[in-house]
Amino acid sequence: MENEEVILEKLKKLIKTKKIKELRDFLDSVNEADFPTIFENLNQEQIVMVYRLLSKERAAEVFVELESEDQEKLINCLTDKEINNVMNEIYMDDAVDLIEEMPSNVVKRILANTKPEDRKIINELLKYPDDTAGTIMTTEFMDFKENMTVKDAFERIKQKGLKSETIYNCYVLSIDRKLLGVVDIKSLLVAETDEIVKDIMDTNVIKVQTLQDQEEVTKIFDKYDLVAVPVVDKENRLVGIVTIDDAIDVLQEETSEDFKKMAAINPAKDSYLKTSVFEHAKNRIVWLLVLMISAMLTGGIIEKFESAISALPVLVAFIPMLMGTGGNSGSQSSTLIIRGLATDEISTKDIFKVMWKEFRVALLVGIVLAFVNAIRVMIQYNDIQIAFTVSATLICTVILAKQLGCILPICAKKLKLDPAVMASPLLTTIVDTVSVLLFFTISTAVFNL
Amino acid sequence: MENEEVILEKLKKLIKTKKIKELRDFLDSVNEADFPTIFENLNQEQIVMVYRLLSKERAAEVFVELESEDQEKLINCLTDKEINNVMNEIYMDDAVDLIEEMPSNVVKRILANTKPEDRKIINELLKYPDDTAGTIMTTEFMDFKENMTVKDAFERIKQKGLKSETIYNCYVLSIDRKLLGVVDIKSLLVAETDEIVKDIMDTNVIKVQTLQDQEEVTKIFDKYDLVAVPVVDKENRLVGIVTIDDAIDVLQEETSEDFKKMAAINPAKDSYLKTSVFEHAKNRIVWLLVLMISAMLTGGIIEKFESAISALPVLVAFIPMLMGTGGNSGSQSSTLIIRGLATDEISTKDIFKVMWKEFRVALLVGIVLAFVNAIRVMIQYNDIQIAFTVSATLICTVILAKQLGCILPICAKKLKLDPAVMASPLLTTIVDTVSVLLFFTISTAVFNL
Repeated sequence: MENEEVILEKLKKLIKTKKIKELRDFLDSVNEADFPTIFENLNQEQIVMVYRLLSKERAAEVFVELESEDQEKLINCLTDKEINNVMNEIYMDDAVDLIEEMPSNVVKRILANTKPEDRKIINELLKYPDDTAGTIMTTEFMDFKENMTVKDAFERIKQKGLKSETIYNCYVLSIDRKLLGVVDIKSLLVAETDEIVKDIMDTNVIKVQTLQDQEEVTKIFDKYDLVAVPVVDKENRLVGIVTIDDAIDVLQEETSEDFKKMAAINPAKDSYLKTSVFEHAKNRIVWLLVLMISAMLTGGIIEKFESAISALPVLVAFIPMLMGTGGNSGSQSSTLIIRGLATDEISTKDIFKVMWKEFRVALLVGIVLAFVNAIRVMIQYNDIQIAFTVSATLICTVILAKQLGCILPICAKKLKLDPAVMASPLLTTIVDTVSVLLFFTISTAVFNL
Repeated sequence: MENEEVILEKLKKLIKTKKIKELRDFLDSVNEADFPTIFENLNQEQIVMVYRLLSKERAAEVFVELESEDQEKLINCLTDKEINNVMNEIYMDDAVDLIEEMPSNVVKRILANTKPEDRKIINELLKYPDDTAGTIMTTEFMDFKENMTVKDAFERIKQKGLKSETIYNCYVLSIDRKLLGVVDIKSLLVAETDEIVKDIMDTNVIKVQTLQDQEEVTKIFDKYDLVAVPVVDKENRLVGIVTIDDAIDVLQEETSEDFKKMAAINPAKDSYLKTSVFEHAKNRIVWLLVLMISAMLTGGIIEKFESAISALPVLVAFIPMLMGTGGNSGSQSSTLIIRGLATDEISTKDIFKVMWKEFRVALLVGIVLAFVNAIRVMIQYNDIQIAFTVSATLICTVILAKQLGCILPICAKKLKLDPAVMASPLLTTIVDTVSVLLFFTISTAVFNL
């Protein structure tokens, strides 16, 4: 981010020389989204000074962009009047996010400086269960009555527009606030001023319910190419909207969670650097323990074949290769399937199609690997029996790993479990055990051990 | 998708009864994004029939939503006039996508039915290198001259608005088409009609260059919460815009690529089900071969310690557990770091911070695992030397795996390589080798083998 470094340098120079007028002008030219990085590189005193030079609206916008710990620090330095200003200017969904992150003494101070009517809305929003549309929606949307003319509509936008998070889509409501239709700003602009809103609205509204899962909401955005989606309650009354920026945040968050689950980590909400060492350890230890204990099973199997190993110690040298290849083959399949399920490319009813495809892929891949392996064994040991045993195990392991790699995630999804948990680590441990068992079973048969 | 099933059932009934009027009304109520699934479930004849009942604009919108193979099938059934209609109605970026996917005989027919001026733009767009802003941008944007009044601006939107992919952001250009500023439709709507566009535009425009990487473009959307970003050439002339829906598609695509690379798969552009068995095998075999051959190294190390194994065969039983735990510990770290790098949560300059954090996490996790393992060994074998050897190896392996798990991806990024390639599979293979080496080195020392 070279850009940010240039901004930072110029800013520090202006702060040093105390040219307030120039500093204010310069701050006006900086994008809100660049402030978190700027604040990270200033001391407390400089932060408060810079913050107080911002205009009322900008101050609130910048505040929303900050990391929660910087917000907390800043709140502790601000006067009640300044907090009041922030709370008046920010959108309701941001206010809720803020309150959820702050310690209780700070929350008290924030709520004391919020208008009673806003406080009511915030409390309403805080009630929705985690990860639902209700928690990510905002209550500031543009609504029209069905009998308004286009001219009336423009008048309303002029009055209320700056207080709405988006005016790209406006919602037409009945008297009891039921959602009748949506008007895109484009169709409003190309309409004649005396047309009635009801006549230009689109009644096929794509909408979500307050309790719908946030991941489903992001899928709707992606599928229908929306910039905002209305959120209705059970009686089809409009209670809020979700905007695309929040949907993207959810999408990124859910993807990060999938990555973590697939690497055997319990997902944490905080970013990597913000999470404490203890928290990191806690999120990782459970799966590591489970997988370690499962891996002992594989060890137990090897012990059972101790006599075979004593008779032919060279067999042991192939175990890492067989386990590794099995694990890698399996995680290739499981990753593709889990990602396919997450993006709706694959659905649970495709299970047999997928299994058949994976079987053929595994056969092809397995044969190539077995062939290369056989050549290597012949060169190194010149023993056709070993070559056969290892290559046969390899093919069986690859097929088995790839079948499990597609069956486990799809079944998990079918059982309404999270497919991502069925990924590499768990799969690898199962495949390890089975591959070792296969190897020694084939070996004892071939060599009559 | 229960919704789609309901739609499909109703549609099939209407097709059967041949109630054209009702069918047409019903089709009007279906969202464009639902048509791909509908067409998948109709035969060729029904598809063409349904398609021809759509209005001109809708037909083009529906066409754009289809999978490329369905587009190809449909084009083969359409008359030249119908193709001409599609090409007149769709946005330029969609036209380019279409042409890139079609076989050359279809491309010829499409271009023959495109207006000469559009053909020129398409050819321009086709020239941008893969994965750059130029390939995902559209050339249909709303532009204003700096001296226009707000009233003029609205007039222009009325005339040209429906031909622009978005009017949420409008761009103010100088006479030589240099980008001077951006006007959000909101500020246009709250402005007085006699104000000059120049006075209400925002001159701090967040923009990208035609040759900028598409992944960077998506990061800009995410950071600045935009719905469209202007694309300029080297002389700051506006040549196109990228809209949020295309940015999300890129984001999803790049994430899927990361998932695949982290599972040792060469990324393919097509979806899982559309990719052929042979193609799947090809994308997976290279890494599997590389990793198999590397795993043979680990086998080689085990062979070197054959005398140690003969003296104390029980040692072999711990190999899968050590390898597995090492691999899992390492991929936990590498996954967190790779994802952190992808979302800009972590930057390469954080390397020492990250290493120190991972070291402490590894120490904590390693001690817990070693403790559990020691108890288990004491119960099963009642041999303190074995318990000590295995537990010591475990702690060293976890620390080493987690250090490599953070160093490798960050170094890859620093060297401008893809961090995702440094993930689990490659890492696991390295950790496997080292853990086995460590284990036997410690064992021979402890037991004087």
